[in-house]
Formats: sequence, structure tokens, C-alpha cells
Amino acid sequence: MAAIGIDLGGTKIQGVLVDHGDVVADAKVATPPGGVDDVVAAVADCVGRLGRPTSVDGVGVGAPGVVDAATGDVVRAPNLPGFEARVPLAAKLGEVLDGVRIVVDNDVNAAVVAEHRLGAARGAVAVLGVWVGTGVGGGLVLDGRVRRGPAGGAGEIGHMVVAGVTRRCGCGQLGHLEAVAGRAAMEVEARRRHDTGEHTALVELAGAKRMKSSVFDKALSAGDAVARELLDEAVAALGAAVASAAALVDLDLVVVGGGLADKLGHQFVGRVEQAVRGRLFLPASALRVVPASLGDLAGAMGAALLVSG
Amino acid sequence: MAAIGIDLGGTKIQGVLVDHGDVVADAKVATPPGGVDDVVAAVADCVGRLGRPTSVDGVGVGAPGVVDAATGDVVRAPNLPGFEARVPLAAKLGEVLDGVRIVVDNDVNAAVVAEHRLGAARGAVAVLGVWVGTGVGGGLVLDGRVRRGPAGGAGEIGHMVVAGVTRRCGCGQLGHLEAVAGRAAMEVEARRRHDTGEHTALVELAGAKRMKSSVFDKALSAGDAVARELLDEAVAALGAAVASAAALVDLDLVVVGGGLADKLGHQFVGRVEQAVRGRLFLPASALRVVPASLGDLAGAMGAALLVSG
Repeated sequence: MAAIGIDLGGTKIQGVLVDHGDVVADAKVATPPGGVDDVVAAVADCVGRLGRPTSVDGVGVGAPGVVDAATGDVVRAPNLPGFEARVPLAAKLGEVLDGVRIVVDNDVNAAVVAEHRLGAARGAVAVLGVWVGTGVGGGLVLDGRVRRGPAGGAGEIGHMVVAGVTRRCGCGQLGHLEAVAGRAAMEVEARRRHDTGEHTALVELAGAKRMKSSVFDKALSAGDAVARELLDEAVAALGAAVASAAALVDLDLVVVGGGLADKLGHQFVGRVEQAVRGRLFLPASALRVVPASLGDLAGAMGAALLVSG
Repeated sequence: MAAIGIDLGGTKIQGVLVDHGDVVADAKVATPPGGVDDVVAAVADCVGRLGRPTSVDGVGVGAPGVVDAATGDVVRAPNLPGFEARVPLAAKLGEVLDGVRIVVDNDVNAAVVAEHRLGAARGAVAVLGVWVGTGVGGGLVLDGRVRRGPAGGAGEIGHMVVAGVTRRCGCGQLGHLEAVAGRAAMEVEARRRHDTGEHTALVELAGAKRMKSSVFDKALSAGDAVARELLDEAVAALGAAVASAAALVDLDLVVVGGGLADKLGHQFVGRVEQAVRGRLFLPASALRVVPASLGDLAGAMGAALLVSG
């Protein structure tokens, strides 16, 4: 049982060849800025570097944004050039990779599937993945199956409304978790405070470039007050949202991954767990909050695992 | 296929005999204050008024609080005398009603099952029931099945953390929905404001007695400012919590029931729907918010339906 998994991101396309649960090859190509056809060609290129597509059981693709897993359409992926409106990604890939079974799902769903089957969430029956990176993504695996929901929008913890958040989210609404706990939102807030005259190492370290996760890590280590406040707010909001999720669906494991969480490490995840405990309806709950363990390849591995259902 | 359903409440025990989806008899007894054995005897009495237990396929019981549906234990039901700690309700009832199949579930889960099979939520695939009464209960029916979760605590929307709520919940935590949208919490707040010198028709109408749902209805109709403010806060918090629930599990229908919601009627439910729409990640979502349609018997009917799985 071999499958190719592709993690289709805004800047890179990461592929793996998985055979009986083991990654036996990997490949990476840049995401072209041109639009849908260029992206499809680049995915096919990445697949081709991993083996003959017809020699595997199928190709799984994890895409950012809202995905209709039943049709393989990407419904809306604002961070992917050309994918602002619905794109029949599975159908288009199928034309290029003739005769190969194609499965498409949300990228965080894929990563959470990988953590559940092979990583930090093994054995758990009700798993929420919280991916803290540029934005805040999520994925739910309940009783061993990805929860997708009637519109394919399940797992979007970044768009839960949380206490104390008054900033506007990238999606246009007020008070969503992502507006305070996503790296991009934290960068906007740090620059706003810098512009009003506050000193912060965050802007000093980043300059005019993107305020990367490593910048937050360095500023925190240096004791920067603005970085600490932004992180405190993010941790509190993540705690509220995860506790709300536990009240609604009853969870036994929360796995925290994503670029910012990976960079800030176990201490960050420990702080989120404490914030969750302070908000839980059932304080004696067996709920645990743990760091993701599969790193950068989780999304691609999960996409491969989705091929076998 | 006939079954007896029991809605075990803090003040009354409501029973129905359901035959092929129709209620063919109903009975009601007061909930005795004595403790577990008295409550079990009263449930058996209510069952006995509806027919010979051995002539039906089973007896379903909806109980308040956290229920372990797998064992039929009530884990914690603070509003039921003697049920503050774990009670093996199915086992105890089984001793009295010898040889009858007994099923126990959370009372709101049962009511939502009834609304899904026979009431306002027919045909929906991802249903959240929000029961606004003394507290705020909830139940999730996903793909036709009640979501219970590993600890039996799923559906507890009343204990989701919501924006702008700073009051302490009955469960001891801060910021939960129930602390602002439950009738009991609204009564506490109305009396607190009365004690600080604010005039409100709520206290005038209720006097020293329980501030019933009808009191809220009358005070609102009379244009009472405190009642209006409490309701505005409740509606906003319900909107935030339901939008968060939709982001997490993706819903196509929210059914609103419970004593306070039933009394305030369709206008209240319409206001909740508007508040939800203002917070949704997918504004074009097909999510609808509708009033429950089965009234007071929903819990008992649902309990009967649970017998057939």
C-alpha cells in the first residue's frame, strides 16, 4: 500500500511517498505565482519526482482553506494564487495525472490525520488539531474519522469567537481567535504599536520583512514587553477556544502544531494547556494538550494517508 | 415498535408511551425531594401509569447533567436531589423494572433527537440543539447520531467561553455562556441590579418568588430597560457561541428550545439567528436557526426514540 501525499502551501509544495506508513522519499517545489494551471502543473511535477503516479494507489493533496472533500474542489483558499473562488482541483489534477486516484482535503485535516495515525495523537478518540502559523487552522478527528461537515467547513477553530478579542479577523468578522493568535495578526498589531511610538524588538528584528516565527521567539527570549503581551493574549484566546471546543464535542486530546507553535516549542504548548484547564467545564477531564510530533512533513504524510481512507 | 420515554427533571417527571413515532399516552408525576431511591421509585411509578413495562421494547430516560450513555450512569446532575455524584440509574431502574431494557441519556440530547426525527430539525445532517431555560443545555446530532464524546460531556454549549461574558458560571468557571444566557443567571443579575437601586419590573413582577420565564416575557413587553439589556446580552452571547460551534463542527441547523426560549417565542429565535450571522466564518452558510416545535414533550419523546437507537 503506497501513496503520494502533497502539502500544497502558499509558498511551497511538499511531497512525500509513503509506503506502509513509512516516508520513503520526499520532494519539494516552489508554489508558482501564476494561477491555477501553473499550480496544477507544479503539483504534477512534484508527484513526478516521487515516482510513477500509476505505481501507487493514489495521490492525496492537502490544500489550505475550505475544501469539499467529496468532490475534491477547493472552495476558497485566499492564500493560494488563483484559488480565491471554487477550483475543481481533483478533476484538474486527474486530467494531468491520467488514471490516478486523487483525494483532496484541507491541509490541517491532513496534518491532524497524520498526527493521529503516526504521531502525537495516536490512540486518542476525539482529537482537535490546532495549527498556529500565519493563521490559526484546525482539524477534528472524531472516532477515527475526519469531521468535515455538510459544507466542508468543520475544524475551523481559528474562526471561533473568543472572549476579549475585539480585532477584526482576516475573514472580515470581529472577535475570531485567528485575529489575535495568528502570526500575521500579531505582526499587524506589533507594527501598529510600533507606529504609535512603542518600542519593540519585533519590528527591530524583522525590519521591513515578514515577521517570522523566529523573530517572535528571539523577541520573547530577549524579554520584549510587546512580544510578551501579544503572546499572553494569544495563549488566553487559544485556551478559551479549546475549552469551548471541549465543551461542545468532548475531546480527549488536543495536538498543537504549525510554524509559530513549532518554533516556540513545548513551553508554549504547556501554557496553552494551562489556559485551557482554567476554562474547562469538566476540570477533572482527561483532556491533554500536546505538541505535534511529525514536524514539517505532517501535512504531506496525512495527505498520503487520506488515500487509503 | 413501542417504547416508554421519561424526561426526568428537577421538579417533574414527564412520561410518554410512543408507538411507531406517535405519542399514544402521557403521564406526569412530581420529582420527590428525598434522594436517589425515591426518584427511582417515582420514575417506575410514572412508567407503570403508561403500561406494562414488559409490553414495550424498552424504557428510555433523559436525565439532566452529564450522563454516561454507555453504562446508563448519571455522572453528575446538580439539579437532581441525590444525583450530585455518580448514580447507576439504568442499573437501579433495571432492578425495579425487572427484565426491561433501559436506556439513559442527557435530557437535552433526548429532546434534540426528538426534534431531529419528528420536529423542527427533520432532514438536517448536522444539528445543534440549544435549550435556553434555567441553564443553557445543548445537544449535537451529527449524521443522524447523538455526539456524546469520550467522557459523555459533548453538546454542553452552555459551558462554551464567549466574548464579553465576565460573570462566573454555576460550574465555577468564568465567562461561560450559561452565566449570561440562562434564566437563573439572569435572575441573579436582575436582583443584583435591583439591590444597587435600579428599578426593574422583573423584581416587581417576581417578588420573592422564582423569576419565571413569563416574568421576563411580561417585563420585555412592558419595555423594561433591565430586562431588555439582559436579553440583549444573552442574545449576543448565544450568537457568539453558536457561530463558534458552526466554525468547529459545521452545522446546517440550530434548533432553539427550552422554557425561556419557548416563552419568548419566534422573535427571540430570530434575534439569535441574526446574532449568529454577524459572527459566521462562512456568511453564505446554509445554516438556519429555528424554534423547537415539539414543546414540553420533546424530552420524553426523544427518550423513547433512544430505545430504538
